[in-house]
Amino acid sequence: MIKVGIVGSTGYAGGELVRLLLQHKEVEIKWLYSQSYLGEDYHRIYGNFFKLLDKKCVGGDINDLVNEVDLIFTATPQGYCSGIINEELLSKVRVIDLSADFRIKDLDIYTSWYNLEHKSPEYIDEAVYGLCEINREKIKKTRILANPGCYTTASILSLYPLVREKLVDLNSIIIDAKSGTSGAGRGSSVASLFCEVNESIKAYGITSHRHTPEIEEQLGYGAGENVIVNFTPHLVPMNRGILTTSYLNLLSKVNYFDLKEIYNKYYGNEYFIRLLEENVFPETRWVSSSNFVDINFKIDNRTNRVVVISAIDNLIKGAAGQAVQNMNIMYGLKENEGLEQVPLFP
Amino acid sequence: MIKVGIVGSTGYAGGELVRLLLQHKEVEIKWLYSQSYLGEDYHRIYGNFFKLLDKKCVGGDINDLVNEVDLIFTATPQGYCSGIINEELLSKVRVIDLSADFRIKDLDIYTSWYNLEHKSPEYIDEAVYGLCEINREKIKKTRILANPGCYTTASILSLYPLVREKLVDLNSIIIDAKSGTSGAGRGSSVASLFCEVNESIKAYGITSHRHTPEIEEQLGYGAGENVIVNFTPHLVPMNRGILTTSYLNLLSKVNYFDLKEIYNKYYGNEYFIRLLEENVFPETRWVSSSNFVDINFKIDNRTNRVVVISAIDNLIKGAAGQAVQNMNIMYGLKENEGLEQVPLFP
Amino acid sequence: MIKVGIVGSTGYAGGELVRLLLQHKEVEIKWLYSQSYLGEDYHRIYGNFFKLLDKKCVGGDINDLVNEVDLIFTATPQGYCSGIINEELLSKVRVIDLSADFRIKDLDIYTSWYNLEHKSPEYIDEAVYGLCEINREKIKKTRILANPGCYTTASILSLYPLVREKLVDLNSIIIDAKSGTSGAGRGSSVASLFCEVNESIKAYGITSHRHTPEIEEQLGYGAGENVIVNFTPHLVPMNRGILTTSYLNLLSKVNYFDLKEIYNKYYGNEYFIRLLEENVFPETRWVSSSNFVDINFKIDNRTNRVVVISAIDNLIKGAAGQAVQNMNIMYGLKENEGLEQVPLFP
Amino acid sequence: MIKVGIVGSTGYAGGELVRLLLQHKEVEIKWLYSQSYLGEDYHRIYGNFFKLLDKKCVGGDINDLVNEVDLIFTATPQGYCSGIINEELLSKVRVIDLSADFRIKDLDIYTSWYNLEHKSPEYIDEAVYGLCEINREKIKKTRILANPGCYTTASILSLYPLVREKLVDLNSIIIDAKSGTSGAGRGSSVASLFCEVNESIKAYGITSHRHTPEIEEQLGYGAGENVIVNFTPHLVPMNRGILTTSYLNLLSKVNYFDLKEIYNKYYGNEYFIRLLEENVFPETRWVSSSNFVDINFKIDNRTNRVVVISAIDNLIKGAAGQAVQNMNIMYGLKENEGLEQVPLFP
Repeated sequence: MIKVGIVGSTGYAGGELVRLLLQHKEVEIKWLYSQSYLGEDYHRIYGNFFKLLDKKCVGGDINDLVNEVDLIFTATPQGYCSGIINEELLSKVRVIDLSADFRIKDLDIYTSWYNLEHKSPEYIDEAVYGLCEINREKIKKTRILANPGCYTTASILSLYPLVREKLVDLNSIIIDAKSGTSGAGRGSSVASLFCEVNESIKAYGITSHRHTPEIEEQLGYGAGENVIVNFTPHLVPMNRGILTTSYLNLLSKVNYFDLKEIYNKYYGNEYFIRLLEENVFPETRWVSSSNFVDINFKIDNRTNRVVVISAIDNLIKGAAGQAVQNMNIMYGLKENEGLEQVPLFP
Repeated sequence: MIKVGIVGSTGYAGGELVRLLLQHKEVEIKWLYSQSYLGEDYHRIYGNFFKLLDKKCVGGDINDLVNEVDLIFTATPQGYCSGIINEELLSKVRVIDLSADFRIKDLDIYTSWYNLEHKSPEYIDEAVYGLCEINREKIKKTRILANPGCYTTASILSLYPLVREKLVDLNSIIIDAKSGTSGAGRGSSVASLFCEVNESIKAYGITSHRHTPEIEEQLGYGAGENVIVNFTPHLVPMNRGILTTSYLNLLSKVNYFDLKEIYNKYYGNEYFIRLLEENVFPETRWVSSSNFVDINFKIDNRTNRVVVISAIDNLIKGAAGQAVQNMNIMYGLKENEGLEQVPLFP
Repeated sequence: MIKVGIVGSTGYAGGELVRLLLQHKEVEIKWLYSQSYLGEDYHRIYGNFFKLLDKKCVGGDINDLVNEVDLIFTATPQGYCSGIINEELLSKVRVIDLSADFRIKDLDIYTSWYNLEHKSPEYIDEAVYGLCEINREKIKKTRILANPGCYTTASILSLYPLVREKLVDLNSIIIDAKSGTSGAGRGSSVASLFCEVNESIKAYGITSHRHTPEIEEQLGYGAGENVIVNFTPHLVPMNRGILTTSYLNLLSKVNYFDLKEIYNKYYGNEYFIRLLEENVFPETRWVSSSNFVDINFKIDNRTNRVVVISAIDNLIKGAAGQAVQNMNIMYGLKENEGLEQVPLFP
Repeated sequence: MIKVGIVGSTGYAGGELVRLLLQHKEVEIKWLYSQSYLGEDYHRIYGNFFKLLDKKCVGGDINDLVNEVDLIFTATPQGYCSGIINEELLSKVRVIDLSADFRIKDLDIYTSWYNLEHKSPEYIDEAVYGLCEINREKIKKTRILANPGCYTTASILSLYPLVREKLVDLNSIIIDAKSGTSGAGRGSSVASLFCEVNESIKAYGITSHRHTPEIEEQLGYGAGENVIVNFTPHLVPMNRGILTTSYLNLLSKVNYFDLKEIYNKYYGNEYFIRLLEENVFPETRWVSSSNFVDINFKIDNRTNRVVVISAIDNLIKGAAGQAVQNMNIMYGLKENEGLEQVPLFP
């Protein structure tokens, strides 16, 4: 049994992590850390856990708490995880960080997009970017796993084969993304009230969303050269789900099956990536509550562009599920252990 | 492995049944029967099953199909199941019927509320009403299991102890129920379009909903005398969930803990019934995607009434989940096998 | 032109008031008072007003501001309006208060349900409860108009004829009410976040909601004796609308048309009350964005109860619209001036 | 008073037209034509009209019905309007067609995208494309007004100044559009059921949506040369609203205010087009229930693209409202007559 502790356990991603880990047969949850809800029964914060999880939120010194566990998850704001990482802590536990602290290798880019000084930059190199299907080998041994962002997971996975194979103009990439509201977190804010979100759609973070450099860095590794993208997120009146619609200029005449073969080469054996049948396109409802990534695309012969569409559950493959998948890889477990749920519909 | 066939597999309850059974480790799904989608890949009807279930919908003579299985589920319109039941069929398979055909023991009441002639009335007596927590012993051996309705499950379970213990005036029972829209089924109809349901709430079937006699009959068995209730269902703009708010006149002065003791006597050991803590009330989000029934109540000292509230997922404890729970009982499996999911939130 | 000022202009009821008054041809809005948004352009708070209303929120001493206007609306928390009312203020302006401060005549009841000391109890008697269809004559001349609550408007109007005519057992009244989420206001709170409200329904304030004594007092005036009711509100995942479903024991055998005649006697000439045709029941979508109250009922012969259903838009007839209707009455305008919008659908 | 008849009055666009025209003080509705609901009270089809509109749906020969009116609106499927247009009919009435029959000047394009033979191609030249802000002069005198599509209105209006002024690469235009569900119409279909749409987002009509050639033709007129665009619509779980997010490569270095000046040149005096303040972006909630078009943009210096965002109410500026605006222009009325509603929120 892997003994785990969860810091930031009361946000939506934290709650989802608790749910997945509670049902994971190789894991024992030792503690749930929360400064905001210190001492409260966890099931009073999330009523779904009533009679299923009998724990109170703990606080205190994280350096003590790590003595009880093998692995910690930090589902915390930017800046927390980089503030606790040091040799002593890493001598006791491995860390899966759901924040952005260790996602970006270029420190200047981190600093400028996040407007934060990084507190343990000496560990950035060591940390592994946990996009499982791309970085599986490196993930196995890392002590610090940087769990990817929600938009980035859907964006990168759906475009990686095209970029890697140099099939598209790298200057032409436009990603138009749509997210459910759980991505905004459980903090109270007028902008996330039911009446503000319901019956409306809006773009936000136009040209400036923090997932942009993360997408660019990873696609850049794939391409072997710099990639600059337009990334525009939108808020959709639904709880869960991310849909990305990406537009890329093709460098040569290819047809659907040419590209499908490329995608199959990369993902044909991946359990969590479902390449849909021709003319069937991803919809968030078909992946909701699961760790699946649905991908398909269509070639527009009139403009010689390819439109690539992907769908994930932002709280699962976009956060907690991918964190569990990373844990499974790190501990040599079956990669889909605890993640085999059939998506729930309706 | 129990070999099962599902008739009416393409409605919402049918789809949920497929999902639960596919993840049930003692079950093998042999066929999915659907007249409307004959020959189609099941995953083209419900995209969540893509790569997880590779079956096409079958049709044909049910009398032949039953040769391949031990158990059939009929998630079909009223009148179908009663039309296929006979000694020969029952010599081959057991039947769990999710329709109303065998729920009501009084044939006249069935006929008048459903406006249908029953095609195999001689089997009504033998059929067992599958409200697991009440009828567990009878369920074990039955060949014909009448799976309860969604509203009825929530209504009966939440009121049964009060009625059985004669704590309330049996002439005072009022049940105001609210349901998500999946209860209306997957048939195309203007009334169930997104724009008709969204941003509105309505009552329907006022004084005439067909779940009324089912509630009355079962509560009547509990009370040992006739029970007549006011039952009013409402349509709520959400996919899943039923909330019941019931109002009953208390026959004597009792306090919260007196009643809690009674509820504990009936349900204290039931895995699927969660009696919430004082002043915490059921909300459908905390049971959604699970087989749980959350129950609590409050005494109104000013009127000497008790207000009882319950919440279920209408497609699970209100349909497919309870059907699986019944199957587990019928086959001597662990009662919560395949039904241990922590409710999904948000 | 009536010159008006609006205090508490940035809540949902305040915003609705601004919208209605801006389109009212006998009204000039002089100022919008808001402590939270002092100095901000109103259209930055509510983007719908961009290019339509060019005002900034003001603060400062209300006693000065009243010099500029004839009438003020207070869409403020309990305790504000009673704190500013005095002879000097009333010598300058009339007041329409959307809070509960002057709704309840019995000071002890106000104090105990609201847990607040009333700051100007000497004005309670003078204030008129602004349920237009019931109190029209008194409304005309009042200086202090207590605008009714949202739940109370729907509850009282739909039950008043039955209670007044003594057709029902006054001890049997049960009101099960369902509201859209705008009723919870625009303050930031976790409980009102999109993800907490969406895909769920819950009861709240069970046996203890503050609209209970308001309903009881007014129905008591109608009946000429004390009335005690069970009132249970529910939160529904939609922006607007209140539906009430009430259950009352009939004192004698009556049929639909007997009762319809009674309702017609009271409301047959009321523009804003629509008595629906037999077997057509109120749905919130049909009154949304309007000041209408839709009412109908059904007699349950099996239990000799009548089920009464009503629907309003909680922000309009339940708040801002009724306030405007009261203003129209107070100033001798056409009662539906500025309130003739056809309900918006879908 | 303009006497009007409405064909196709029972769809969502038709219902919205009835609502707007009923409140328009220069219009008298003479008849509502509907084959599906022939003889039914209109308020039984749309309950919002109860007591406000006392008409039954009529059928019969349109050539007779036109004798009673000055103007007909056809909110009908493609092919209907082109089937009734002839000299005799046009000698009696003017026609505002909300279908696509007369929107596209190039007959081959119409035929190939709509897969329909046009029944009165000789009238295509005469018909005027009713994008009010662009074609105002031509609209005044036309007998046949082709009312633009919903997606097209938002797309064209938001991009027209950039294209007309040759500020962008005409081969680079990508339009990612998101629509509420009322755009799918009121016909019963599984795909539009509440449970299918709620809690999901999907793209559809990828590279093949019929509004594409309409956008291309009109932008082409603006540019004075052929324009080919990528247009991808998405279905969003809300009733009303369209948001477009468009991506265009700038041909030179310009800043926000350079472009704002251009937009002001075209739209600075337009009542219905609101150019938002810098860094405030359109959201559908701020235009809902109104005829406004909100537009803003942001320049991405990293990619030298401009991201243009627009929002409309699809049933109003995208259908019925624009039709009324066109009528106002055609009959020399104040252009915003009957269309001055402040958008409703929340």
